[in-house]
Amino acid sequence: MKQSQLFTKTRKEAPKDEVSKNAQLLTQAGFVVKEIAGAYNYLPLGLRVLNKISNIIRDEMNKAGSQEIFMTALQDKETWEKTGRWSDDVVDNWFKTQLKNGTELGLGFTHEEVIAKIMSNFVSSYKDLPFSAYQIQTKFRNESRAKSGLMRGREFFMKDLYSFCKDENEHNDFYEKMKDVYMNVFNRLGMGEKTYITISSGGSFSKYSYEFQTLSEAGEDIVYIVDEDKKIAINKEDFNDEILKDFNLSLDKNKLEGHRSIEVGDIYTLGYRFSEAFNLTFKDEEGKEKPVFMGSYGMSPSRLMGAVVELNSDEKGIIWPETVAPFKVHLLSLGAEKQAEEIYNQLQENGIEVLFDDRDKKAGEKFADSDLIGIPYRVVVSEKSLSQGGVELKKRAENDGKIVSINDLVGLLK
Amino acid sequence: MKQSQLFTKTRKEAPKDEVSKNAQLLTQAGFVVKEIAGAYNYLPLGLRVLNKISNIIRDEMNKAGSQEIFMTALQDKETWEKTGRWSDDVVDNWFKTQLKNGTELGLGFTHEEVIAKIMSNFVSSYKDLPFSAYQIQTKFRNESRAKSGLMRGREFFMKDLYSFCKDENEHNDFYEKMKDVYMNVFNRLGMGEKTYITISSGGSFSKYSYEFQTLSEAGEDIVYIVDEDKKIAINKEDFNDEILKDFNLSLDKNKLEGHRSIEVGDIYTLGYRFSEAFNLTFKDEEGKEKPVFMGSYGMSPSRLMGAVVELNSDEKGIIWPETVAPFKVHLLSLGAEKQAEEIYNQLQENGIEVLFDDRDKKAGEKFADSDLIGIPYRVVVSEKSLSQGGVELKKRAENDGKIVSINDLVGLLK
Repeated sequence: MKQSQLFTKTRKEAPKDEVSKNAQLLTQAGFVVKEIAGAYNYLPLGLRVLNKISNIIRDEMNKAGSQEIFMTALQDKETWEKTGRWSDDVVDNWFKTQLKNGTELGLGFTHEEVIAKIMSNFVSSYKDLPFSAYQIQTKFRNESRAKSGLMRGREFFMKDLYSFCKDENEHNDFYEKMKDVYMNVFNRLGMGEKTYITISSGGSFSKYSYEFQTLSEAGEDIVYIVDEDKKIAINKEDFNDEILKDFNLSLDKNKLEGHRSIEVGDIYTLGYRFSEAFNLTFKDEEGKEKPVFMGSYGMSPSRLMGAVVELNSDEKGIIWPETVAPFKVHLLSLGAEKQAEEIYNQLQENGIEVLFDDRDKKAGEKFADSDLIGIPYRVVVSEKSLSQGGVELKKRAENDGKIVSINDLVGLLK
Repeated sequence: MKQSQLFTKTRKEAPKDEVSKNAQLLTQAGFVVKEIAGAYNYLPLGLRVLNKISNIIRDEMNKAGSQEIFMTALQDKETWEKTGRWSDDVVDNWFKTQLKNGTELGLGFTHEEVIAKIMSNFVSSYKDLPFSAYQIQTKFRNESRAKSGLMRGREFFMKDLYSFCKDENEHNDFYEKMKDVYMNVFNRLGMGEKTYITISSGGSFSKYSYEFQTLSEAGEDIVYIVDEDKKIAINKEDFNDEILKDFNLSLDKNKLEGHRSIEVGDIYTLGYRFSEAFNLTFKDEEGKEKPVFMGSYGMSPSRLMGAVVELNSDEKGIIWPETVAPFKVHLLSLGAEKQAEEIYNQLQENGIEVLFDDRDKKAGEKFADSDLIGIPYRVVVSEKSLSQGGVELKKRAENDGKIVSINDLVGLLK
């Protein structure tokens, strides 16, 4: 895409009403615009990144055999009364609205109730199990505070997956598999190294559940790493003698240090709570009616986008990992329009995603914008580079570039 | 995909709480499940169709040079007060909600205000114009009645595009171009023949605006066709002597018959209303500050999905056009599992999307399900077909199939 045609522009300074690094950088570089605190509009560059993250998640969920669906935001009061979750005393972050005739509706903050109700139409026999379904959809949560940019939203994107098994054993197999599936996603987003499977107390069915926590000063949580090799940590609130004993961890609690971290995913064993409420049952091999054993698995593409920025930036701007960058290459023309245009066409013909800064701007401004936007590879075409034999190729994450011939460029970038 | 793994099942009968054909068929065949009247959950088959329609629209908008974005559903009261559209007396289909501190919020039923406000950050010079941006996003409208299935939703998908030009002339060029872009979409959805550019009175800026109306008994509108060759019609409410005169149409009003039709798109000249409210201005060639001239262009992927079903069905079920079908081929195994499995693999290796009915069911049930689901090509593998030299290939829209050899099958379907 030609930058002269991209309607967004970078800002000279970070927005004053944002305190989080991710919101500051993403706004300054023209990826997002805040609508209200905790709800962001995605501009062309921002939507490209969000879609890449969503597609990585989608790919991993599909590979795990899950089927994609899309559920409504508008929620029926009656449905949620069945599990006692309609009341604002039980769930404190509902957004509620109503039909013209006064019927109350909620805006979905999660979808366990809905999917249990849907599946009760389709599951009847043990032969229908196990399976799972997921969606990537907009969630609404009425948070009192929303100061973490894309990391804690009132309106945000969520991938929520739900599993349906015939018993706890079958569920445990799927649950274990999902731990790997989640780590695959974090690895592809370039944050696997810093991400720990974190034990916390919980949920309604089991004593413990698992979160995924990524070390970052921007995080709202604190975790204690108890096994570096297996990448296991414990949430601060649950870091006590009992949990250490339950997991057979013989270490001195007082010698470990806590680390700030971002919760990037969570997986829950739900058991029978929702299947029993919605009569989601099946006939087993002996013809006996049993409730389905459920699990749920959350992960937010927009929160992950914020987390990626928190983990990958320097004083000049964002440094996108290649897998989620809006473009792979940022091509800057400095007074060599003809040659730059040819290279632009050549890169595009070879399927390389390129943002071409063809604007009539000074070199300093183009360099600053390029660093701020953070595309992984920068290619500069100028009189000087041409006289030296080609173009300057530099990685955003590195300080020094090198001159490469135009003929070699495509091969190097492919 | 293997049908034994698809968690949806067809229903024996159409749901009793639906009156529209599209909702009846799509529910019975397992494409959607109603959450509340006017809001549907999309199951795997339904989401595949919806995505195909959205991707056709996306492709045509991108080809027209438009840039995709994504705006929030949660809407700020202050923004909408600037144009006087916050009041329920002015806009009668708002869904409203509030933050914990009592701040009122709306759920976006359209986005003119939002995008004008966003663009005021980016547009400053005539050099920034013209351009356009669009989104495919969930809209909320508090309709009093919602009985048309996917065709009139309280929560539905909308493609809304907004154009930004320096004056009315530049706008008119873009507006004319969008008429063709819209017709390209309808042609690709197989409904071009029945779709008319329909003149109706108004909007705030111009005397007339244009809708796209597709002839169907399921429609809520009535149109009079005034030029069959150029595919021009006039909306019933505006079908009077004045409009005929304005458009130089010399025909006898009383000799024309009205046709029921579905509104499948509308395009508006907005003029300065929104740019003036949000200070969306630019400096012209002489340095003079002027407001941007805007237009908006709507089209709903989910309504189009409903319309496609209304236009393409018979007493047995849906007949999807190939461009939007959930799969291209429905492969039915009738007691020839081994050969069917081989054909399934072969089709998939050749990039042909195939739903493989590998279930342990009777022939009659498989045929009935296949007709109901409506995939364009049906391939039956049975002892009988094999003894006749291959498989039976039949189009959903035709009554008779023919035997083709397994070797020829891929070539015929590619």
